[in-house]
Amino acid sequence: MTEAAPMALALEEARAAGARGEVPVGAVVTDAAGRILARAGNEVEARHDPSAHAEMLALRAAAAARGAKWLADATLWVTLEPCPMCAQAISFFRVRRVVFGAYDPKGGGVEHGARVLAAPSCHHVPEVVGGMRESEAAALLRAFFQARR
Amino acid sequence: MTEAAPMALALEEARAAGARGEVPVGAVVTDAAGRILARAGNEVEARHDPSAHAEMLALRAAAAARGAKWLADATLWVTLEPCPMCAQAISFFRVRRVVFGAYDPKGGGVEHGARVLAAPSCHHVPEVVGGMRESEAAALLRAFFQARR
Repeated sequence: MTEAAPMALALEEARAAGARGEVPVGAVVTDAAGRILARAGNEVEARHDPSAHAEMLALRAAAAARGAKWLADATLWVTLEPCPMCAQAISFFRVRRVVFGAYDPKGGGVEHGARVLAAPSCHHVPEVVGGMRESEAAALLRAFFQARR
Repeated sequence: MTEAAPMALALEEARAAGARGEVPVGAVVTDAAGRILARAGNEVEARHDPSAHAEMLALRAAAAARGAKWLADATLWVTLEPCPMCAQAISFFRVRRVVFGAYDPKGGGVEHGARVLAAPSCHHVPEVVGGMRESEAAALLRAFFQARR
């Protein structure tokens, strides 16, 4: 699997979420060897749960599958910059690296807004790479919201 | 039910969590009439899920029980100042009011750290009351961590 292949899967999850009427965001968790531990799309509407972001679902599934609460060797691939909730969860799960697609100036909590991982009180700070397949991830979101206006 | 009764239940949940080996934090969600919608204690260890904070579990349970993702009439009672993850979730669930017990200078995300609800990009900001039965909530946490040193 090439370095960026998990982002293609995350984009698939995002597309599937959009087709279900969810905001099209998808996430994948891989281990140090690049194996997929979990994948998920947004399920906020289906679960009546505003915390059911793709990242949260994928992180919980990856840790549950392993029976261990920390994902210290893991990379989280997500099509949109994580919000403050997900950014803090990423730190709590001790994820090694986060690779995200589109930047989110309005709702993001990593490069924008509360910038949760930059707070001095944030214990575990992952490596962060933004902008991978950014235009595709952003186009999905743009089309979704334009269709709803 | 008196105004502060839900905090007594939240403290019960915190004590029960501590007895299970979890960090002793408890939460209760009430509706506008003061009825209990959900109650929960920390389940991080039991679920292998660092996002399984008492607040997250109680909010998810309250919304799931109603089959609606927003809790616009609800009050969240929690024994400890919410962390950045829970603060953002509280905003996403559109909780009307948050009443917390102990302040958390190290891990809190409301009055401390990333101060998530104070970010200009935070759309929904609940009313926040801190320090209710603070000394009891703090004593539970202190005893728990002292016993583990």
